[in-house]
Formats: sequence, structure tokens, C-alpha cells
Amino acid sequence: MNNIQFGPFSGLSLEGRVAVIADEAVAARVGAEFIVPSGEASKTREMKQFLENQLLEKGYGRDTTIVAVGGGVVTDLVGYLASTYMRGVPLILVPTTLLAMVDAAIGGKNGVNTPYGKNTIGTFYPPKTVLIDFEFLDTLLPHEWTNGRAEIIKLGLVWDATLLEGLPIRQAIAAKIEITELDPQEKGLRRLLNFGHTIGHALELSQNYSIAHGKAVAMGCLAESWLSMHLGYLPPSEFARVAELFPARLSFDREKVLQAMRLDKKAINGIPRFVLIDQIGHAVEFDGDYCRTVKEEDLHALFDWMEDSALLT
Amino acid sequence: MNNIQFGPFSGLSLEGRVAVIADEAVAARVGAEFIVPSGEASKTREMKQFLENQLLEKGYGRDTTIVAVGGGVVTDLVGYLASTYMRGVPLILVPTTLLAMVDAAIGGKNGVNTPYGKNTIGTFYPPKTVLIDFEFLDTLLPHEWTNGRAEIIKLGLVWDATLLEGLPIRQAIAAKIEITELDPQEKGLRRLLNFGHTIGHALELSQNYSIAHGKAVAMGCLAESWLSMHLGYLPPSEFARVAELFPARLSFDREKVLQAMRLDKKAINGIPRFVLIDQIGHAVEFDGDYCRTVKEEDLHALFDWMEDSALLT
Repeated sequence: MNNIQFGPFSGLSLEGRVAVIADEAVAARVGAEFIVPSGEASKTREMKQFLENQLLEKGYGRDTTIVAVGGGVVTDLVGYLASTYMRGVPLILVPTTLLAMVDAAIGGKNGVNTPYGKNTIGTFYPPKTVLIDFEFLDTLLPHEWTNGRAEIIKLGLVWDATLLEGLPIRQAIAAKIEITELDPQEKGLRRLLNFGHTIGHALELSQNYSIAHGKAVAMGCLAESWLSMHLGYLPPSEFARVAELFPARLSFDREKVLQAMRLDKKAINGIPRFVLIDQIGHAVEFDGDYCRTVKEEDLHALFDWMEDSALLT
Repeated sequence: MNNIQFGPFSGLSLEGRVAVIADEAVAARVGAEFIVPSGEASKTREMKQFLENQLLEKGYGRDTTIVAVGGGVVTDLVGYLASTYMRGVPLILVPTTLLAMVDAAIGGKNGVNTPYGKNTIGTFYPPKTVLIDFEFLDTLLPHEWTNGRAEIIKLGLVWDATLLEGLPIRQAIAAKIEITELDPQEKGLRRLLNFGHTIGHALELSQNYSIAHGKAVAMGCLAESWLSMHLGYLPPSEFARVAELFPARLSFDREKVLQAMRLDKKAINGIPRFVLIDQIGHAVEFDGDYCRTVKEEDLHALFDWMEDSALLT
């Protein structure tokens, strides 16, 4: 499913008609014909339609290969676009941020946000190729390193504790590939990649996507580790080690976060489900579901802790 | 791929959360919660987004089954919606028109129109079930019979001449299933279902979708049969038999139709490709492509004939 190549963008072999769509930050560098404004605000149905119209206006047909160059916003947005343009055209993803390289661009998921939630609308659509060119990391901003690191730590918490040592980019990519190929359609196992994201996405939505995804995921990993401990799965000594990994702070609106979780894609009948861990590097299986419902009273206990915690003010 | 059931709508077995989305003409009859205004003008990205927001507003999650009840507009629109809602939820199609029963609802294709073309944006997304309830045909309007009949005649021209005798609905459904299961992703053979549609879709687009799809397809079948004769594939005696099947008339704008065909999904580098027949009931194979490019001079010859013909004024 994942055809990952490592190498320079200039070495990408392209045949036939090609439409390059890129984040404005890298558009000039790759000679993009179509440009996506930087930032999560571009990940919408409206931006998809705007780009579709530009492609149609210029006569790009089903014989087009679409190349998406940028961070997770661009790979998610353009991946979704490619999956529905003329009912699907070949797609090449070129992730330019750490987060997109280790997470967004791997595994065939895409999507856009709506006022009701993160990645609410989208498809599973494997790209023909994912090209990883580490040269793009040379211009990465500090907060973009933090964003990517949060997803690597998440992988470390649910899958392989050795990922928590240093910044093992290639191993993180390999781990994400392994998990997504074991469960491409997210019937069970792949859900563990959602660790930290039930709370994380809800935090993002509750703040209108004004906070960085990585910061929200970091908060989410810490909160869901606490929940894992509170529900009796994770030993307190292990939780203490997790807490050391996340020094960030964030305030939140409890009601908005609760409301946002009701539309989480794992929710059943509006009751959110959580991935939980029982040790660092291992998620609880729950008969292959890799997530379980959590009562509202336990969520309030979590919010109480989040509000009281010196980590989150 | 196709799980077709025949029987009454009331006998549909539904489990879990269900969202019924129906054409306004049948919404009351099936107790639909969400309503699509009748007519081709509803088959847009904007209407999809409007319906998505309604579903999200009411808290429908990934555990929802979407039931689409209506003609081809509703099965195409809602099929596309279901394929991207929460990255895809189970879909049940209940076609209520002859055209939707024998064509639109069979084979897993969906889509919406844009100002640039018909079904320009969409996906391949097999429904869980297609329920065919012939009771819906009791209230069908005369032009809706004509629409459906055009697709049956098309199947007769490219696949099985016996479909031209009478109005063999079940056999037409079986033929469409057979073709789509031989080539679900439209790599070759399935293209022959596009006979009559290169011209047909272009006629529709050139008139802003103000003419019935079936009328446009009828015109398209006649025009593309003439092209098949003009290019030396179809004997004139066979063409004469085809001409007898289509008594309709239609005026058109040559430049607009030419322009519209450049974005046809079969086009290569903006040059349209056509399915052609060499006898009634048989399409030309062209090394498995089942279509070929046609020079602009031959298209002008076709338009000259269309303008001169007593059939099209």
C-alpha cells in the first residue's frame, strides 16, 4: 500500500500530465502551478472546491497525476482532492514537514475539517508514491519540529518504546507503515494511532483549529495516559514517565471539548471511545477494537485533573 | 460488488443508526429525515456540503448507515456523500426511477456535476445493498420512462441486441451488473457503458443541465452510431436500424459542445475518445480500451450531419 521513496524532489520521475499543488512556503522551490495558503484554515471543503475549479479551468483531465507538496494540511487536503477528481487520479505525496513525513502522508488517509470536527470528510486513498526528501527539513521552524515529535512520541507510547529515544525519523516512518499495512481500513489495530487524538482533536475543534496539531496531540497523549492510569490499566510509575515527556501548557473549555468528542469518528451513538495504554510502548487490545467507551464521570475526573494540573493551566 | 435485492422498501432490514436521505418526490412515502430537492440542479458539491452539515449537526457518526432513496441524482449525490462522510459509511441505495434502477444505482460509481462537466467529482464506492422496489415505478412520469429506456437501448447497442426488444428491466440490470463486475474500476471494458455519453454529457453541459439526461443520451447514441458508420465500423444498414430507435430532436451549440468534450473523463490531453460500435449489440474493442480518439474534422462532419439531419433541428 505504501510506496515510500527517499531522495531529492528533483529526482522525482513524472510522466504525462502533472499538476503540482504546494503549500505557499515551498511553492516557488518546487515550481508549483497551484498554491495552498499555509495553515490549518486551508484544510476545508471550500479550499478543495477552489482548487478543483482551478484544475478544471485549466483542462486537467483524468490522465493527470497530482503531486502534493507541503505539510499535513496539504497532503490531507490534496490527497482528498485527488481521490475524487474525475473519480480518482494518480497521487504523489511529497511531505515537507516532520509531522507529514512520519504521520500525515503515510497510510492513505486524507480529509478536511468542518465546523463540526477534524478530518470529518475524506477518504482512504493510497498515493502512488510518497517521496521523502529530508532537504525540506532544513527550513523547518521550531514549532514544526515540536509538532512532528509529538506524533513520534505517540508511536512510542502505543507501539515501540524505543521510539522515545532521540528523534528516530526513519524508524517512526517504518512503524507507521507497519501499523497501517496491518489494518489499512482502520477496522481495529490502526485505531491505536488515534492515541492522544480523541482529546487532541477535541481541543483543536474547541479552539477553532487555532492551536498547532502537535501541541494538541501532546496534550491529548498526556491526558489519555492519565485516563489509562485512572481506569486501572497504566501503573502510576509509568504515567510519571509519560508526564516527563510533555512539558506543554494549554487552557480549554470543558463543555466545548466534551461536545467535540461526541462526533469523534470512533464514537458509538455519540459516546466517545479512547485508545488506552497499559505500559509505555503497548496499547490495550479490547478484543481487537483497540479502544473502549469511557463514562462521562471519568471524563470529568480527567478534566478536573487537567485543570488542577500544573501542566495545564 | 453488487448486492442487489428485489422487494418492498418496507422489507428493508436496517440495524443501528440510520439516516434516510430522499428526493422530495418520495420523501414522505419513505419517512426521510433529510430531503433533496428534485432535479439535476441538486447534484452539486454545494448540496453535498449542505447535507453533510445537516448530518453533522444532528450528530450522525461513523456508525451510521446512509440510505439514499430517489432517482439517479439522489443515488449519485448521496453515494458520493456516503463515500467521504467520516471517510466512508455503509450505504444502501434505493433507486426509484427506471434510469436509476438500470443504470445510476448499479456498479458503484457516483458523483456530482460542476460548471465544467458532468460527474466531474466523485468516487467508486460500492453500496452495501441496492434495493429495487418496482412499486416506485407506479408513479413514474412519462419523461422518466423515456430517460430509463435510453440507457436500456444503449446497453442493447453495445452489449446485447435482445435488450432492444420490449422493456426488459431485469435483463438490463443483469447486463449492467455483468459489465461492471468484469471491470469495476473502468480500466477498459466498462467504458462501453459510456456509449452515447461523450456527446450526451457535452450536450447536457452545453445547455447547463436543462435537458433530461435520457434525452441527451438518446441523442448521443444516435450521434455516436453515425460516427461509428462515418469512421467505417458500422454498416449503413445497421445505422439505419439505430436511427429508427431515436425519434427525438434537439438543437445545440457546436462550439460549446466541442469545448465540453475536452474535459470528458475519457479524453487524453484534451482530445475526446469515443466508444464505437461495429454492429447492433457489439462495441469495437481497440486493444481493450473500448474507445478511441476522433479527429476534430470528423467531429465537425458529425455536427454537420446533426445540423442537417431532420432528426435534430
